[in-house]
Amino acid sequence: MMKRNLLLTPGPTQIPPEICAALGRPIIHHRTPQFQDNLRGAIEGLQYVFQTNNDIYVLTCSGTGAMEAAVSNLLSPGDKALTVEGGKFGERWTELCRSYGVKTEVLEVVWGKAVQANEIKKRLNANEDIKAVFITQCETSTGVTTDVEAVARVVRDTRAILVVDAISSLGVTDLKTDRWGVDVVVSASHKGLVLPPGLAFISVNEKTLQRIAQSKNARYYFDLRKAKEALEDMDTPFTPAIGIVIALNESLRRIKAQGLENLLTHYARLAQATRQAALALGLSLFPDESAMSNVLTAISLPVGIDGGEIVKIMRDTYGISIAGGQDSLKGKIIRIAHMGCLDEYDILTGISCLEKVLTQLGHQFTCGVGVAAAQKTFNT
Amino acid sequence: MMKRNLLLTPGPTQIPPEICAALGRPIIHHRTPQFQDNLRGAIEGLQYVFQTNNDIYVLTCSGTGAMEAAVSNLLSPGDKALTVEGGKFGERWTELCRSYGVKTEVLEVVWGKAVQANEIKKRLNANEDIKAVFITQCETSTGVTTDVEAVARVVRDTRAILVVDAISSLGVTDLKTDRWGVDVVVSASHKGLVLPPGLAFISVNEKTLQRIAQSKNARYYFDLRKAKEALEDMDTPFTPAIGIVIALNESLRRIKAQGLENLLTHYARLAQATRQAALALGLSLFPDESAMSNVLTAISLPVGIDGGEIVKIMRDTYGISIAGGQDSLKGKIIRIAHMGCLDEYDILTGISCLEKVLTQLGHQFTCGVGVAAAQKTFNT
Repeated sequence: MMKRNLLLTPGPTQIPPEICAALGRPIIHHRTPQFQDNLRGAIEGLQYVFQTNNDIYVLTCSGTGAMEAAVSNLLSPGDKALTVEGGKFGERWTELCRSYGVKTEVLEVVWGKAVQANEIKKRLNANEDIKAVFITQCETSTGVTTDVEAVARVVRDTRAILVVDAISSLGVTDLKTDRWGVDVVVSASHKGLVLPPGLAFISVNEKTLQRIAQSKNARYYFDLRKAKEALEDMDTPFTPAIGIVIALNESLRRIKAQGLENLLTHYARLAQATRQAALALGLSLFPDESAMSNVLTAISLPVGIDGGEIVKIMRDTYGISIAGGQDSLKGKIIRIAHMGCLDEYDILTGISCLEKVLTQLGHQFTCGVGVAAAQKTFNT
Repeated sequence: MMKRNLLLTPGPTQIPPEICAALGRPIIHHRTPQFQDNLRGAIEGLQYVFQTNNDIYVLTCSGTGAMEAAVSNLLSPGDKALTVEGGKFGERWTELCRSYGVKTEVLEVVWGKAVQANEIKKRLNANEDIKAVFITQCETSTGVTTDVEAVARVVRDTRAILVVDAISSLGVTDLKTDRWGVDVVVSASHKGLVLPPGLAFISVNEKTLQRIAQSKNARYYFDLRKAKEALEDMDTPFTPAIGIVIALNESLRRIKAQGLENLLTHYARLAQATRQAALALGLSLFPDESAMSNVLTAISLPVGIDGGEIVKIMRDTYGISIAGGQDSLKGKIIRIAHMGCLDEYDILTGISCLEKVLTQLGHQFTCGVGVAAAQKTFNT
């Protein structure tokens, strides 16, 4: 029977049909003026979404590759860095730092809560040798958002570089790179930029460029000195994922036409409706109320209902993909993303399917209350 | 006016329309049984083309990323390696080794000539501490092919690991990984596998896996221990370029249906016809006769004819892309690739366009002799 393929997952996200069509076009060579036009358009578009005039380097890799580029280019073995662990992606910063012999001061945060800027300030005051602070704007494993502006305010006056993982949040949550004074931002193609995975991006300011020149780490593919040199000739040091760069240019044109602010408002509405639906279904929201992300909603499940089952049935029976919990949250939460090429009817579809599967698994509620709660948000 | 977009470039290569269509399909999530089926199919198909039963890891990066993975996972700072420099890609092995603090014994070969296995043997005998030998099957900058079988025979009995860059040659030139005893092979998606750039591959045998466990290099994204662990669950450690993996599965199905041996013969015919055409046009072939690659033909130009001009006019006026010379060969050669989704009529088209542009630039020959020479090869 007919079955949709709807992605309500936090990456990859739903790709608009026009972008799919762009991905299916015959390829062109990358050492040509034709490709350079695409790369130029893509970088200008990225600067709009990153809200920065800084250099942005396009890397062919997943988001983790850009995270590694930040660590290996900014620090040397023996340097000290501060990481914030409130979920799986915060932990990745720590792992990366340790892989490179960086001494890591770890600020642990209970999963579901956001780090407080004054906690970071305390650690920075107590450790004046901290050279970089690594945070995660949207901790995709928990649905928690970090107040990047507040953190930037406390890091700005120190010698530390602030590095923000905006992989899942770019283009979905506000991030005023230049206005807030964020030194480095990393992101990737397969989240708010509605493309397939394969590209990652890193923006770096002047302070960071000086630091990059000093790093003693062995590096080649992710060497940002090479990326900078190539960018001066509107080029990449190594063959880029040409097809995705061309589609990126299209996607950014689309985002500009829609307007970043309008998009942020749109995603906030989808998030708000999803939260209201979950509450109406008698479920609770996993993150602290003050820290809920508009990128995705993490919903706690009652004892006896397995999140893994919900994900599996929704996907394999009805063609609607959401995400389950990771690590200690496995089975205990489900995660519904709002980013990507999604409108309110996609969210209603997802909630309706969730209602069907929750009923199948024995959860008690009045059929339709979840969808109605979401509609109420959308229609008022 | 109507203008074709024909790629006779050594990567990216011409993508078949069916693969373009696959690239334009809506995306699926990667942590699903549906994606695992694609990854499994892709890896089995790669084993067929690599002619190996070894593990093959799929990395999201350009070919250089897989080269870096070989260096950073196999060696530690202070180790010694042998590299062969007969062109730009041989030099890349040296640069990578030096980036990682590896002492590099460089075997320099005149550009256009192939390395002789007994030269490698001499260096290995004189330097028993060499831990790895890095060679390039097809040196894409010069159109020279290396006799990998002969090199493998001399490396096999030493403690050194033989690493072959088969980025441009895989699926185009014979490479019997297991039969010849090649320890490590690296390749990429945008050459003989007729896909866009974005994926790279590395095959490693048992001897190599032991070596990987010993390396002291900092590494994370390219850590092959992570790749191995993930592969055991038919997964990748980080989000892969999902769209290209799915298209890879399609491409490999197509290659299997055509038969690898038939493909190698096909490419050899395209190469032979191109060489005959060049000679008929009064041009000479850049590589030594004994070392000519079937991946691409490097053609030397008479003094006064600029290769860069030829490339530019063919591409911008007629929509047919070939490559020029790199570094010291800039302007002096042109390179016409035979790999990709190309048939004999594509080669005739390329030769015909080359004739037109050579005439424009003042080279003297009887119109049609190049095309006729190629036809003669094809029609007999």
